[in-house]
Amino acid sequence: MIFIDACLGKKTPYTPVWMMRQAGRYLPEYMRVRGEAGDFLSLCKDVERACEVTLQPVDILGVDAAILFSDILVVPMEMGMDLRFEAGEGPIFDNPIKSQADLDALNVEKGVDNLSYVYEAVKMIRSKLDPSKALIGFCGAPWTLATYMIEGKGTKNYAVSKKMLYSNPQLLHAILRKITKALKVYMSRQIEAGANAVQIFDSWAQALEESAFFEFSWPYIKELCSYLKEKYPHIPIIVFPKGISAYLEKIDGDFDVFGVDWSTPIELAKEKLGSKYVLQGNMEPTRLYDKDAIDVGIDHIYSVMKNSRHIFNLGHGILPDIPVENAKYFIKSVQKRTKS
Amino acid sequence: MIFIDACLGKKTPYTPVWMMRQAGRYLPEYMRVRGEAGDFLSLCKDVERACEVTLQPVDILGVDAAILFSDILVVPMEMGMDLRFEAGEGPIFDNPIKSQADLDALNVEKGVDNLSYVYEAVKMIRSKLDPSKALIGFCGAPWTLATYMIEGKGTKNYAVSKKMLYSNPQLLHAILRKITKALKVYMSRQIEAGANAVQIFDSWAQALEESAFFEFSWPYIKELCSYLKEKYPHIPIIVFPKGISAYLEKIDGDFDVFGVDWSTPIELAKEKLGSKYVLQGNMEPTRLYDKDAIDVGIDHIYSVMKNSRHIFNLGHGILPDIPVENAKYFIKSVQKRTKS
Repeated sequence: MIFIDACLGKKTPYTPVWMMRQAGRYLPEYMRVRGEAGDFLSLCKDVERACEVTLQPVDILGVDAAILFSDILVVPMEMGMDLRFEAGEGPIFDNPIKSQADLDALNVEKGVDNLSYVYEAVKMIRSKLDPSKALIGFCGAPWTLATYMIEGKGTKNYAVSKKMLYSNPQLLHAILRKITKALKVYMSRQIEAGANAVQIFDSWAQALEESAFFEFSWPYIKELCSYLKEKYPHIPIIVFPKGISAYLEKIDGDFDVFGVDWSTPIELAKEKLGSKYVLQGNMEPTRLYDKDAIDVGIDHIYSVMKNSRHIFNLGHGILPDIPVENAKYFIKSVQKRTKS
Repeated sequence: MIFIDACLGKKTPYTPVWMMRQAGRYLPEYMRVRGEAGDFLSLCKDVERACEVTLQPVDILGVDAAILFSDILVVPMEMGMDLRFEAGEGPIFDNPIKSQADLDALNVEKGVDNLSYVYEAVKMIRSKLDPSKALIGFCGAPWTLATYMIEGKGTKNYAVSKKMLYSNPQLLHAILRKITKALKVYMSRQIEAGANAVQIFDSWAQALEESAFFEFSWPYIKELCSYLKEKYPHIPIIVFPKGISAYLEKIDGDFDVFGVDWSTPIELAKEKLGSKYVLQGNMEPTRLYDKDAIDVGIDHIYSVMKNSRHIFNLGHGILPDIPVENAKYFIKSVQKRTKS
């Protein structure tokens, strides 16, 4: 698998490419299956349909890796939190975590067992996926999951989580420990079901100032990486902490690939981390609105990374109103442009 | 005025301090006046009440500078765009700019004349404000204003503006030129009415990748700064482009103070810009939920900046649910801690 080779720093015939949220709303085929499933959460729990939408971008766009279709919030949901998705509002937990008692009510063992539909989907996807293509499993990072569990709904300022962080850090650490414990099992089971690599999404790393990031986010990601690396040394681990360009040089840990978000100049990521890790990313997702902008973006990133270890991707998820034709153009152009 | 001295790099008896959004919802006195005015926009247009809420944090908290109470969006509104504020949704322009014709319908000259209530408020505030305290005028940066004018409403991804940026850059540049033209007059009139310093807020600088920032945002800020600096060399100019920590070393221009947002480590800002500019900032605003967190935040920033040119501030606006007592504690603690 060219994607796995690239994750491990081996030479590949071209730079492999995939897109975050590639199984998503910009694809009419996805919208059809989602409509059949009923709603977003039903689609996550529907093994056959989750498998179908995971495979769509491989067939339609020719990406080099599939990423499991699921949502990061199924983990706290199955641990006992009531999750619903409201149109236009995003995910809502009706009973956010406010106290140690709220946290104690969550069950790690039951949660990871309840997630069997995810492991079954991984197994089915791996059995149907072209053997030359990789399957990426994933989870949300502990801090990112904690913000949702504490806020209960979308937030602009993360004020509830950060109030807890600065005035009751013990409780926040207890939440993070419990999530990390669940994620160790959750990711292990995805790997044992057939995931060829895993990615840890810390989308809300950017909500933290530096000192808080290195106390409340990064140590838990590192702990999870070390655990998985020791248990599954040949499975590449990708981390994606978004918005931390100001202190990239302080990043270390037992992982293979660092995901670069679009706000971090690729030159800076290469300078600070390129000798330690394979870099993944980081095209500005809105460049996909325009083919010329796609060409300029690819040229720029490739001019920086052509002699370094690199996986092409967007620097954030693909947007729902991107024309499929442009997404296809991006994938094909990368594969053609980077051919050695 | 100790604040102006600090802006110009002169030695001061202590580090002056103010807070972005200090005339705001966390103050019961503000809420009372806003209730009397009717709504937010009416308050912006009500000279006496705008003056009253501008002065409140000076009286209540003892900050070293007042900042004009207004909104960055009054500029496009008075140029001819219908603006309304919906509870929970923020500002809405019902007819966003989609074409050159939409842009042509906006009138710079009429707009800056219609803004006379702002100039009158500045005049009244300056006449009532303690002569030892500075009055800061302000505007939104061209790119930030353009995003609102193009999106029409709140956005998570700036997808409409960035679609224009990558597929119709000519129109975006035309919008930015027209806004910049209006801001030159608007800021000149604030200064002539009595503003002792001005701040340019580029809150959505963070929505741009590096190359786009240096094409669509920064040149227009620089142009505005150069214009004002030449005309009013003794009026300090503060710029606040949020979320650009990855390329601080490329920042230059005719301004005096660089506002550091909370996501940029103050050590990094000092290293990259501290020898060229006075730095303002950058306490994490959610630290104001807790007095111990305030102390730790002040100690950290002061340990870095004590022998450098510095103005204390938050790294973003104060949040509506911060206890007034904690805001007061922050201001008093800075003034006490930094006394030489």
